[in-house]
Amino acid sequence: MGAVIAEFSIIPLGLKETSLSKYVAEAIKIVKDSGIKYQLTPMGTILEDDSLERILSVIQRVHNALFELGIPRLLTRISIDERRDVSRTMESKVESVLRRLES
Amino acid sequence: MGAVIAEFSIIPLGLKETSLSKYVAEAIKIVKDSGIKYQLTPMGTILEDDSLERILSVIQRVHNALFELGIPRLLTRISIDERRDVSRTMESKVESVLRRLES
Amino acid sequence: MGAVIAEFSIIPLGLKETSLSKYVAEAIKIVKDSGIKYQLTPMGTILEDDSLERILSVIQRVHNALFELGIPRLLTRISIDERRDVSRTMESKVESVLRRLES
Amino acid sequence: MGAVIAEFSIIPLGLKETSLSKYVAEAIKIVKDSGIKYQLTPMGTILEDDSLERILSVIQRVHNALFELGIPRLLTRISIDERRDVSRTMESKVESVLRRLES
Repeated sequence: MGAVIAEFSIIPLGLKETSLSKYVAEAIKIVKDSGIKYQLTPMGTILEDDSLERILSVIQRVHNALFELGIPRLLTRISIDERRDVSRTMESKVESVLRRLES
Repeated sequence: MGAVIAEFSIIPLGLKETSLSKYVAEAIKIVKDSGIKYQLTPMGTILEDDSLERILSVIQRVHNALFELGIPRLLTRISIDERRDVSRTMESKVESVLRRLES
Repeated sequence: MGAVIAEFSIIPLGLKETSLSKYVAEAIKIVKDSGIKYQLTPMGTILEDDSLERILSVIQRVHNALFELGIPRLLTRISIDERRDVSRTMESKVESVLRRLES
Repeated sequence: MGAVIAEFSIIPLGLKETSLSKYVAEAIKIVKDSGIKYQLTPMGTILEDDSLERILSVIQRVHNALFELGIPRLLTRISIDERRDVSRTMESKVESVLRRLES
Protein backbone atom coordinates (compact mmCIF):
# COMPACT_ATOMS: atom_id res chain seq x y z
CA MET A 1 0.00 0.00 0.00
CA GLY A 2 1.63 3.26 -1.04
CA ALA A 3 0.64 6.83 -0.36
CA VAL A 4 2.84 8.12 -3.17
CA ILE A 5 2.48 7.27 -6.86
CA ALA A 6 4.89 9.00 -9.25
CA GLU A 7 5.62 8.81 -12.97
CA PHE A 8 8.98 9.73 -14.44
CA SER A 9 10.71 9.84 -17.81
CA ILE A 10 14.31 10.69 -18.61
CA ILE A 11 15.17 12.06 -22.07
CA PRO A 12 18.84 11.98 -23.12
CA LEU A 13 19.91 14.77 -25.50
CA GLY A 14 22.91 14.97 -27.83
CA LEU A 15 22.43 11.48 -29.32
CA LYS A 16 22.36 10.77 -33.07
CA GLU A 17 19.98 7.82 -32.46
CA THR A 18 16.23 8.44 -32.21
CA SER A 19 15.35 5.27 -30.28
CA LEU A 20 15.60 5.62 -26.50
CA SER A 21 14.74 2.02 -25.52
CA LYS A 22 18.38 1.26 -24.59
CA TYR A 23 18.28 4.04 -21.98
CA VAL A 24 14.82 3.14 -20.71
CA ALA A 25 16.07 -0.45 -20.22
CA GLU A 26 19.02 0.91 -18.18
CA ALA A 27 16.54 2.87 -16.06
CA ILE A 28 14.32 -0.16 -15.49
CA LYS A 29 17.30 -2.26 -14.37
CA ILE A 30 18.07 0.27 -11.63
CA VAL A 31 14.41 0.52 -10.63
CA LYS A 32 14.20 -3.31 -10.40
CA ASP A 33 17.37 -3.50 -8.31
CA SER A 34 15.92 -0.96 -5.87
CA GLY A 35 13.05 -3.33 -5.07
CA ILE A 36 10.52 -0.51 -5.44
CA LYS A 37 7.12 -1.34 -6.97
CA TYR A 38 6.93 -0.11 -10.59
CA GLN A 39 4.98 -0.27 -13.84
CA LEU A 40 6.38 0.47 -17.31
CA THR A 41 4.00 2.37 -19.62
CA PRO A 42 4.41 3.51 -23.25
CA MET A 43 5.18 7.04 -21.97
CA GLY A 44 7.14 6.56 -18.72
CA THR A 45 7.72 4.53 -15.60
CA ILE A 46 5.34 4.67 -12.63
CA LEU A 47 6.62 4.07 -9.08
CA GLU A 48 4.61 3.40 -5.92
CA ASP A 49 5.91 3.67 -2.37
CA ASP A 50 4.95 5.09 1.00
CA SER A 51 7.98 7.39 0.99
CA LEU A 52 8.41 10.24 -1.51
CA GLU A 53 12.05 10.45 -0.45
CA ARG A 54 12.69 6.84 -1.53
CA ILE A 55 10.97 7.44 -4.87
CA LEU A 56 13.03 10.56 -5.58
CA SER A 57 16.22 8.78 -4.57
CA VAL A 58 15.56 5.96 -7.09
CA ILE A 59 14.89 8.53 -9.85
CA GLN A 60 18.12 10.38 -8.95
CA ARG A 61 20.03 7.09 -9.15
CA VAL A 62 18.68 6.52 -12.68
CA HIS A 63 19.42 10.13 -13.68
CA ASN A 64 23.04 9.83 -12.48
CA ALA A 65 23.54 6.39 -14.08
CA LEU A 66 22.52 7.76 -17.50
CA PHE A 67 25.08 10.57 -17.20
CA GLU A 68 27.70 7.93 -16.46
CA LEU A 69 26.93 6.35 -19.86
CA GLY A 70 28.39 9.54 -21.35
CA ILE A 71 25.21 11.48 -22.15
CA PRO A 72 25.90 15.26 -22.03
CA ARG A 73 22.38 16.52 -21.20
CA LEU A 74 19.32 14.96 -19.57
CA LEU A 75 15.73 16.16 -19.28
CA THR A 76 13.94 14.38 -16.43
CA ARG A 77 10.22 14.82 -15.75
CA ILE A 78 8.57 13.69 -12.53
CA SER A 79 4.87 13.79 -11.78
CA ILE A 80 4.02 13.03 -8.12
CA ASP A 81 0.57 12.20 -6.73
CA GLU A 82 0.50 11.92 -2.92
CA ARG A 83 -2.61 11.43 -0.77
CA ARG A 84 -2.62 11.58 3.02
CA ASP A 85 -6.38 11.09 3.46
CA VAL A 86 -6.70 7.52 2.11
CA SER A 87 -4.35 4.78 1.00
CA ARG A 88 -4.44 3.37 -2.52
CA THR A 89 -2.26 1.53 -5.04
CA MET A 90 -1.48 1.93 -8.75
CA GLU A 91 -4.02 -0.84 -9.37
CA SER A 92 -6.76 0.63 -7.17
CA LYS A 93 -6.50 4.01 -8.96
CA VAL A 94 -7.26 2.35 -12.31
CA GLU A 95 -9.92 0.04 -10.83
CA SER A 96 -11.89 2.87 -9.26
CA VAL A 97 -12.21 4.45 -12.72
CA LEU A 98 -13.18 1.14 -14.36
CA ARG A 99 -15.83 0.50 -11.69
CA ARG A 100 -17.44 3.88 -12.44
CA LEU A 101 -17.41 3.14 -16.18
CA GLU A 102 -19.29 -0.12 -15.62
CA SER A 103 -21.98 1.34 -13.39
CA MET B 1 -0.01 1.81 -36.45
CA GLY B 2 0.31 5.32 -35.09
CA ALA B 3 3.06 7.86 -35.48
CA VAL B 4 1.80 9.85 -32.50
CA ILE B 5 1.56 8.61 -28.91
CA ALA B 6 0.39 11.13 -26.32
CA GLU B 7 -0.43 11.03 -22.60
CA PHE B 8 -2.83 13.46 -20.98
CA SER B 9 -4.33 14.16 -17.58
CA ILE B 10 -6.95 16.71 -16.61
CA ILE B 11 -7.06 18.03 -13.03
CA PRO B 12 -10.24 19.81 -11.89
CA LEU B 13 -9.72 22.50 -9.24
CA GLY B 14 -12.21 24.05 -6.83
CA LEU B 15 -13.69 20.72 -5.66
CA LYS B 16 -14.11 19.73 -2.02
CA GLU B 17 -13.67 16.03 -2.93
CA THR B 18 -10.13 14.60 -3.23
CA SER B 19 -10.99 11.65 -5.47
CA LEU B 20 -10.92 12.40 -9.17
CA SER B 21 -12.10 9.01 -10.49
CA LYS B 22 -15.54 10.38 -11.41
CA TYR B 23 -13.93 12.91 -13.75
CA VAL B 24 -11.45 10.43 -15.18
CA ALA B 25 -14.40 8.12 -15.96
CA GLU B 26 -16.12 11.01 -17.80
CA ALA B 27 -12.93 11.53 -19.80
CA ILE B 28 -12.64 7.85 -20.70
CA LYS B 29 -16.26 7.76 -21.92
CA ILE B 30 -15.49 10.56 -24.40
CA VAL B 31 -12.22 8.91 -25.47
CA LYS B 32 -14.07 5.60 -26.04
CA ASP B 33 -16.81 7.31 -28.07
CA SER B 34 -14.18 8.91 -30.30
CA GLY B 35 -12.98 5.46 -31.36
CA ILE B 36 -9.34 6.46 -30.83
CA LYS B 37 -6.93 3.82 -29.46
CA TYR B 38 -6.22 4.44 -25.75
CA GLN B 39 -4.73 2.97 -22.59
CA LEU B 40 -5.63 4.01 -19.03
CA THR B 41 -2.66 4.14 -16.62
CA PRO B 42 -2.51 4.99 -12.89
CA MET B 43 -1.24 8.49 -13.83
CA GLY B 44 -3.07 9.41 -17.04
CA THR B 45 -4.56 8.29 -20.33
CA ILE B 46 -2.39 7.43 -23.33
CA LEU B 47 -3.71 7.91 -26.88
CA GLU B 48 -2.26 6.58 -30.15
CA ASP B 49 -3.13 7.80 -33.63
CA ASP B 50 -1.48 8.80 -36.87
CA SER B 51 -2.84 12.33 -36.57
CA LEU B 52 -1.76 14.75 -33.82
CA GLU B 53 -4.71 16.94 -34.77
CA ARG B 54 -7.19 14.14 -34.02
CA ILE B 55 -5.49 13.44 -30.66
CA LEU B 56 -5.61 17.12 -29.63
CA SER B 57 -9.22 17.39 -30.70
CA VAL B 58 -10.21 14.43 -28.46
CA ILE B 59 -8.36 16.00 -25.51
CA GLN B 60 -10.10 19.34 -26.14
CA ARG B 61 -13.47 17.57 -26.21
CA VAL B 62 -12.71 16.05 -22.78
CA HIS B 63 -11.46 19.41 -21.44
CA ASN B 64 -14.65 21.19 -22.56
CA ALA B 65 -16.93 18.40 -21.29
CA LEU B 66 -15.45 18.70 -17.78
CA PHE B 67 -16.11 22.47 -17.75
CA GLU B 68 -19.72 21.70 -18.67
CA LEU B 69 -19.98 19.65 -15.45
CA GLY B 70 -19.55 22.97 -13.62
CA ILE B 71 -15.87 22.85 -12.75
CA PRO B 72 -14.45 26.40 -12.50
CA ARG B 73 -10.77 25.68 -13.30
CA LEU B 74 -8.95 22.88 -15.14
CA LEU B 75 -5.28 22.02 -15.42
CA THR B 76 -4.62 19.83 -18.45
CA ARG B 77 -1.21 18.29 -19.18
CA ILE B 78 -0.34 16.75 -22.52
CA SER B 79 2.87 14.93 -23.38
CA ILE B 80 3.28 14.17 -27.10
CA ASP B 81 5.80 11.77 -28.65
CA GLU B 82 5.80 11.83 -32.47
CA ARG B 83 8.23 9.97 -34.74
CA ARG B 84 8.40 10.45 -38.51
CA ASP B 85 11.33 8.06 -39.08
CA VAL B 86 9.68 4.76 -38.06
CA SER B 87 6.20 3.58 -37.14
CA ARG B 88 5.44 2.04 -33.77
CA THR B 89 2.58 1.40 -31.36
CA MET B 90 2.03 1.83 -27.62
CA GLU B 91 2.71 -1.92 -27.31
CA SER B 92 5.86 -1.93 -29.46
CA LYS B 93 7.38 0.89 -27.36
CA VAL B 94 7.06 -1.21 -24.19
CA GLU B 95 8.12 -4.45 -25.94
CA SER B 96 11.34 -2.95 -27.29
CA VAL B 97 12.36 -2.10 -23.72
CA LEU B 98 11.39 -5.55 -22.41
CA ARG B 99 13.36 -7.26 -25.20
CA ARG B 100 16.49 -5.34 -24.19
CA LEU B 101 15.98 -6.28 -20.53
CA GLU B 102 15.86 -9.97 -21.43
CA SER B 103 18.99 -9.97 -23.59
CA MET C 1 -7.42 39.39 -20.78
CA GLY C 2 -7.14 35.67 -21.38
CA ALA C 3 -8.90 32.79 -19.72
CA VAL C 4 -6.27 30.31 -20.91
CA ILE C 5 -2.60 30.33 -19.96
CA ALA C 6 -0.47 27.47 -21.31
CA GLU C 7 3.21 26.58 -21.23
CA PHE C 8 4.85 24.41 -23.87
CA SER C 9 8.26 23.03 -24.74
CA ILE C 10 9.32 21.02 -27.78
CA ILE C 11 12.33 18.69 -27.52
CA PRO C 12 13.90 17.48 -30.78
CA LEU C 13 15.52 14.03 -30.60
CA GLY C 14 18.12 12.46 -32.89
CA LEU C 15 20.45 15.48 -32.90
CA LYS C 16 24.20 15.29 -32.18
CA GLU C 17 24.10 18.86 -30.77
CA THR C 18 23.13 19.40 -27.11
CA SER C 19 22.05 23.03 -27.45
CA LEU C 20 18.42 23.52 -28.43
CA SER C 21 18.40 27.35 -28.68
CA LYS C 22 18.27 27.23 -32.50
CA TYR C 23 15.01 25.29 -32.33
CA VAL C 24 13.54 27.41 -29.56
CA ALA C 25 14.27 30.50 -31.69
CA GLU C 26 12.40 28.88 -34.62
CA ALA C 27 9.47 28.26 -32.28
CA ILE C 28 9.46 31.84 -31.01
CA LYS C 29 9.45 33.21 -34.58
CA ILE C 30 6.25 31.28 -35.31
CA VAL C 31 4.68 32.33 -32.02
CA LYS C 32 5.53 35.99 -32.76
CA ASP C 33 4.08 35.76 -36.28
CA SER C 34 0.83 34.37 -34.85
CA GLY C 35 0.34 37.58 -32.87
CA ILE C 36 -0.52 35.58 -29.72
CA LYS C 37 0.65 36.97 -26.36
CA TYR C 38 3.70 35.05 -25.10
CA GLN C 39 6.52 34.99 -22.56
CA LEU C 40 9.81 33.10 -22.96
CA THR C 41 11.09 31.46 -19.73
CA PRO C 42 14.28 29.44 -19.07
CA MET C 43 12.17 26.25 -19.23
CA GLY C 44 9.54 26.88 -21.93
CA THR C 45 7.25 29.34 -23.64
CA ILE C 46 4.03 30.57 -22.01
CA LEU C 47 1.05 31.61 -24.14
CA GLU C 48 -2.08 33.53 -23.10
CA ASP C 49 -5.32 33.75 -25.06
CA ASP C 50 -9.05 33.50 -24.55
CA SER C 51 -9.23 30.48 -26.88
CA LEU C 52 -7.61 27.13 -26.07
CA GLU C 53 -8.13 26.16 -29.71
CA ARG C 54 -6.00 29.08 -30.92
CA ILE C 55 -3.26 28.21 -28.41
CA LEU C 56 -3.17 24.56 -29.48
CA SER C 57 -3.13 25.54 -33.14
CA VAL C 58 -0.04 27.76 -32.61
CA ILE C 59 1.74 24.92 -30.77
CA GLN C 60 0.85 22.49 -33.59
CA ARG C 61 2.26 24.96 -36.14
CA VAL C 62 5.56 25.05 -34.20
CA HIS C 63 5.58 21.25 -33.84
CA ASN C 64 5.09 20.77 -37.61
CA ALA C 65 7.64 23.46 -38.53
CA LEU C 66 10.34 21.68 -36.49
CA PHE C 67 9.65 18.40 -38.31
CA GLU C 68 10.09 20.29 -41.59
CA LEU C 69 13.64 21.18 -40.47
CA GLY C 70 14.38 17.45 -40.78
CA ILE C 71 14.09 16.37 -37.14
CA PRO C 72 13.01 12.68 -36.94
CA ARG C 73 11.34 12.70 -33.49
CA LEU C 74 9.77 15.40 -31.31
CA LEU C 75 8.61 15.39 -27.71
CA THR C 76 6.15 18.21 -27.04
CA ARG C 77 4.84 19.02 -23.57
CA ILE C 78 1.87 21.29 -22.98
CA SER C 79 0.56 22.45 -19.62
CA ILE C 80 -2.81 24.24 -19.80
CA ASP C 81 -4.41 26.32 -17.04
CA GLU C 82 -7.94 27.50 -17.88
CA ARG C 83 -10.31 29.34 -15.54
CA ARG C 84 -13.94 30.09 -16.34
CA ASP C 85 -14.78 31.73 -12.99
CA VAL C 86 -12.53 34.82 -13.22
CA SER C 87 -10.35 36.45 -15.85
CA ARG C 88 -6.63 36.95 -15.33
CA THR C 89 -3.39 37.47 -17.24
CA MET C 90 0.11 35.99 -17.06
CA GLU C 91 1.12 39.13 -15.16
CA SER C 92 -1.80 39.07 -12.71
CA LYS C 93 -1.03 35.43 -11.77
CA VAL C 94 2.50 36.40 -10.70
CA GLU C 95 1.37 39.66 -9.06
CA SER C 96 -1.23 37.96 -6.87
CA VAL C 97 1.56 35.76 -5.44
CA LEU C 98 3.90 38.73 -4.93
CA ARG C 99 1.15 40.71 -3.18
CA ARG C 100 0.67 37.86 -0.70
CA LEU C 101 4.41 37.67 -0.06
CA GLU C 102 4.53 41.37 0.83
CA SER C 103 1.60 41.29 3.24
CA MET D 1 26.63 29.20 -12.40
CA GLY D 2 24.38 26.16 -12.16
CA ALA D 3 24.39 22.92 -14.10
CA VAL D 4 20.84 22.12 -13.06
CA ILE D 5 17.76 24.16 -13.92
CA ALA D 6 14.40 22.77 -12.78
CA GLU D 7 10.81 23.97 -12.86
CA PHE D 8 8.21 22.78 -10.37
CA SER D 9 4.56 23.36 -9.55
CA ILE D 10 2.52 21.95 -6.67
CA ILE D 11 -1.26 21.61 -7.06
CA PRO D 12 -3.32 21.12 -3.88
CA LEU D 13 -6.54 19.09 -4.32
CA GLY D 14 -9.63 18.93 -2.12
CA LEU D 15 -10.01 22.72 -1.78
CA LYS D 16 -13.24 24.61 -2.45
CA GLU D 17 -11.23 27.70 -3.53
CA THR D 18 -10.03 27.96 -7.14
CA SER D 19 -7.20 30.44 -6.50
CA LEU D 20 -3.89 28.84 -5.56
CA SER D 21 -1.84 32.02 -4.97
CA LYS D 22 -1.90 31.50 -1.19
CA TYR D 23 -0.16 28.13 -1.60
CA VAL D 24 2.27 29.41 -4.21
CA ALA D 25 3.23 32.22 -1.80
CA GLU D 26 3.89 29.59 0.92
CA ALA D 27 6.11 27.72 -1.54
CA ILE D 28 8.06 30.85 -2.49
CA LYS D 29 8.69 31.68 1.20
CA ILE D 30 10.36 28.29 1.67
CA VAL D 31 12.33 28.63 -1.57
CA LYS D 32 13.54 32.11 -0.48
CA ASP D 33 14.55 30.83 2.97
CA SER D 34 16.61 28.06 1.34
CA GLY D 35 18.78 30.68 -0.35
CA ILE D 36 18.53 28.83 -3.68
CA LYS D 37 18.36 30.93 -6.88
CA TYR D 38 14.80 31.02 -8.23
CA GLN D 39 12.44 32.70 -10.69
CA LEU D 40 8.63 32.82 -10.38
CA THR D 41 6.76 32.42 -13.70
CA PRO D 42 3.01 32.47 -14.46
CA MET D 43 3.09 28.63 -14.63
CA GLY D 44 5.59 27.53 -11.96
CA THR D 45 8.79 28.22 -10.09
CA ILE D 46 12.21 27.71 -11.69
CA LEU D 47 15.23 26.81 -9.54
CA GLU D 48 18.93 26.87 -10.50
CA ASP D 49 21.73 25.16 -8.62
CA ASP D 50 24.77 23.02 -9.25
CA SER D 51 23.28 20.16 -7.19
CA LEU D 52 20.15 18.26 -8.26
CA GLU D 53 19.98 16.84 -4.75
CA ARG D 54 19.68 20.33 -3.22
CA ILE D 55 16.98 21.28 -5.72
CA LEU D 56 14.93 18.15 -4.99
CA SER D 57 15.33 18.66 -1.25
CA VAL D 58 13.91 22.22 -1.50
CA ILE D 59 10.95 20.94 -3.54
CA GLN D 60 10.33 18.18 -0.98
CA ARG D 61 10.37 20.77 1.81
CA VAL D 62 7.68 22.77 -0.02
CA HIS D 63 5.65 19.61 -0.71
CA ASN D 64 5.72 18.61 2.97
CA ALA D 65 4.95 22.14 4.20
CA LEU D 66 1.77 22.26 2.09
CA PHE D 67 0.58 18.96 3.59
CA GLU D 68 1.13 20.50 7.04
CA LEU D 69 -1.38 23.23 6.09
CA GLY D 70 -3.99 20.44 6.08
CA ILE D 71 -4.23 19.70 2.35
CA PRO D 72 -5.27 16.05 1.79
CA ARG D 73 -3.74 15.49 -1.68
CA LEU D 74 -0.94 17.13 -3.65
CA LEU D 75 0.12 16.82 -7.27
CA THR D 76 3.73 17.96 -7.74
CA ARG D 77 5.36 18.25 -11.15
CA ILE D 78 9.10 18.65 -11.62
CA SER D 79 10.91 19.23 -14.91
CA ILE D 80 14.71 18.94 -14.64
CA ASP D 81 17.24 20.10 -17.25
CA GLU D 82 20.83 19.14 -16.39
CA ARG D 83 23.88 19.65 -18.63
CA ARG D 84 27.32 18.29 -17.85
CA ASP D 85 29.00 19.53 -21.06
CA VAL D 86 28.72 23.31 -20.49
CA SER D 87 27.66 25.59 -17.68
CA ARG D 88 24.78 28.03 -18.07
CA THR D 89 22.27 30.00 -16.02
CA MET D 90 18.52 30.64 -16.24
CA GLU D 91 19.40 34.00 -17.81
CA SER D 92 21.90 32.61 -20.33
CA LYS D 93 19.34 30.05 -21.58
CA VAL D 94 16.90 32.83 -22.46
CA GLU D 95 19.64 35.13 -23.83
CA SER D 96 20.97 32.50 -26.22
CA VAL D 97 17.49 32.26 -27.78
CA LEU D 98 17.09 36.06 -27.96
CA ARG D 99 20.53 36.43 -29.60
CA ARG D 100 19.47 33.99 -32.34
CA LEU D 101 16.22 35.87 -32.89
CA GLU D 102 18.10 39.15 -33.42
CA SER D 103 20.60 37.75 -35.92
